Amino acid sequence: MTALQDIVVLDLGQIYNGPYATFLMAMAGARVIKVESLTGESLRGRGLTSSAAYPFEMLNQSKESVSLDLKHPDGKALFLDLVRQADVVLENFSPDTMERLGLGYEQLEKVNPGIIYAAGSGYGRSGPHRDYLAMDITVQAMSGLMSITGTEGGDPLKSGAAVCDFFGGVHLYGAIVTKLYERQRTGKGAMIDMAMQDAVLPTLASVFGAYYFNDRQLPPRTGNRHPALTMAPYNVYRARDGHVAVICVRDGHWRSLLTAIDREDLLARADLEKMMDRAAHMEEVDQVVGDWIAGQSRQDALTRLQAHGVPASVVRNIEEIMTDEHLHQRGTLNRVTHPVLGELVMMNSAINTATGAEVSPRPAPALGEHTHEVLRDLLGLNESQLNDLQDKGVTGQP
Amino acid sequence: MTALQDIVVLDLGQIYNGPYATFLMAMAGARVIKVESLTGESLRGRGLTSSAAYPFEMLNQSKESVSLDLKHPDGKALFLDLVRQADVVLENFSPDTMERLGLGYEQLEKVNPGIIYAAGSGYGRSGPHRDYLAMDITVQAMSGLMSITGTEGGDPLKSGAAVCDFFGGVHLYGAIVTKLYERQRTGKGAMIDMAMQDAVLPTLASVFGAYYFNDRQLPPRTGNRHPALTMAPYNVYRARDGHVAVICVRDGHWRSLLTAIDREDLLARADLEKMMDRAAHMEEVDQVVGDWIAGQSRQDALTRLQAHGVPASVVRNIEEIMTDEHLHQRGTLNRVTHPVLGELVMMNSAINTATGAEVSPRPAPALGEHTHEVLRDLLGLNESQLNDLQDKGVTGQP
Repeated sequence: MTALQDIVVLDLGQIYNGPYATFLMAMAGARVIKVESLTGESLRGRGLTSSAAYPFEMLNQSKESVSLDLKHPDGKALFLDLVRQADVVLENFSPDTMERLGLGYEQLEKVNPGIIYAAGSGYGRSGPHRDYLAMDITVQAMSGLMSITGTEGGDPLKSGAAVCDFFGGVHLYGAIVTKLYERQRTGKGAMIDMAMQDAVLPTLASVFGAYYFNDRQLPPRTGNRHPALTMAPYNVYRARDGHVAVICVRDGHWRSLLTAIDREDLLARADLEKMMDRAAHMEEVDQVVGDWIAGQSRQDALTRLQAHGVPASVVRNIEEIMTDEHLHQRGTLNRVTHPVLGELVMMNSAINTATGAEVSPRPAPALGEHTHEVLRDLLGLNESQLNDLQDKGVTGQP
Repeated sequence: MTALQDIVVLDLGQIYNGPYATFLMAMAGARVIKVESLTGESLRGRGLTSSAAYPFEMLNQSKESVSLDLKHPDGKALFLDLVRQADVVLENFSPDTMERLGLGYEQLEKVNPGIIYAAGSGYGRSGPHRDYLAMDITVQAMSGLMSITGTEGGDPLKSGAAVCDFFGGVHLYGAIVTKLYERQRTGKGAMIDMAMQDAVLPTLASVFGAYYFNDRQLPPRTGNRHPALTMAPYNVYRARDGHVAVICVRDGHWRSLLTAIDREDLLARADLEKMMDRAAHMEEVDQVVGDWIAGQSRQDALTRLQAHGVPASVVRNIEEIMTDEHLHQRGTLNRVTHPVLGELVMMNSAINTATGAEVSPRPAPALGEHTHEVLRDLLGLNESQLNDLQDKGVTGQP
């Protein structure tokens, strides 16, 4: 028994943004059917030997695949028949793509008034920027994230992680399940227009805070320091064999830290007692902490600080994360043997990890692997009809 | 009529992670009751004149506040009575805090088997790292995000945005609504153990992909270039008056770009035609694009590229975002006059913007502002009982 076991999703998502929302749905038990062109979804197209292979495999776990030509009149008709059987349609094409196919929300609502149409995009389907093509890097730039990432005096930098794509995707998931919940009561469908930019803006709450606090002065990039420079210690310090992140969010943390690093002499410094004062003495505070950490291994520094109740961690690389026993024990990561890619560390849905859902994910589907199965199951087509569609090029070869 | 209008949430969330989940719930119509100590939730404590004022106001829109001493036996009893009337309890305290109060999931489930207990933390309530204290910066370090953010050869860098806090918060929201949906069918409550680290790992999909693609070599930091260095153009280029982000995710984008920048001579270069080849010529590709952009204003560059169907944007700062007509038209941002802080640009819930929910958010509550109202409403307490509780210090002064 899974949470979304009664839900059918037609997934036209491409690359990361849309597919992450439907990944979360598939892992929560929904029947997610990737509806792909006869040449396959973009991310699939980069091939199994590309760097996109792992992301594709990860994001499309437990989904089925139907290959359908939506430009063919018979393909359109089939799609509308599928919509009648579905609860959710999701896409993250460039604006008006579905409308030009005659398959926009207005058309789908007519065949199924209860349909939840979930559209992902960079900036939204309304507003002056609706037609701006967008990818994660361009939304990181447009949304303000880059302007406050980077060293003091350095150039604006992107996060190395695709944060905008995934913020968009998870908020799309949140909106879909919210509307599914509401539909239980009202029976009504909905149009969801989720912009990656809208989804990522709240992460700038501290920066908006800094702007207002500093009389509407533009906050500078602060490297690894606090965005408003109003908290110390708050930094990443060099250890003998790596880097250690430390933050004291309460004055009690600072007192504990001084004990941990054998600097209880500084407890007498009244001008370091409160956060605001420590922030005013940021260079000195960073030196005190940094000097101590420089003489430690990163693990020793972490262990000692945590033992004294000071929030700290180490900067870890991908390999350390992939082999992290903590993540494997929680089931966040799992070692799998992929039929083509071999031994992999596969990511779970964080929602499944959090809820203890015991789901054995299936590998991502081959293109059109489930075309016949889905059309038989949901539309009752017979062998002769299925072969005819394939011959006409309305559906693809499995 | 709002999606979650029938839901009551007891919100013990602090700072960003937990409160973002309950912010999304409050904005979706749930009755969210902040249950605070008599001195108030941490983020509130930094004061209305601190840089934390705006984040507090933003995250606690449309919530009520009850001040309750959970260490007092009468306070505990009252809380359990409230749990009987509630659907969701949320907290993001350090591990075992609630258990030590005798108010952990095991106890709450006894008084209300249908309760959904949502716990947010850095690394989760299970596993070898369960007891590591965590904040956004330490999770950015631990989760791998910092190791792949920064310039080639530079130090590991945090995102200037609190991405881990908010990924944790929105996945918590997604998990809660998923369980509420499931509960409609099963009647059963649930324990949700959402780790910020688990929630943010999927953003590293490209980096895991790079690792496997490069025969398990550690991916370096790549500045503003593609994480696996397998796509070009993909970068942020200096214009006369700022920076422009450009990405060509299809070969067609490259051809369009060459037309846009009057370099159709390069269409003849067979060794730049396909993405893999352009990636192999990354320096040259960046020079071609960079030279053109260097001679443009950033807006001219953006306009011309977008007009030719090339995904591009400009690097914007906080002020440009706060005054962005697009964001105001969509309702993502709204100008408000705050009773204490004055004129502010307030953020909406991205889910409300996406679903067109017409919600007029209420300002964040003062500490204990609704104590009497809530205890009267949900528990039927009378004036004399309420005054008695206040006199005993079980509840705070409003």
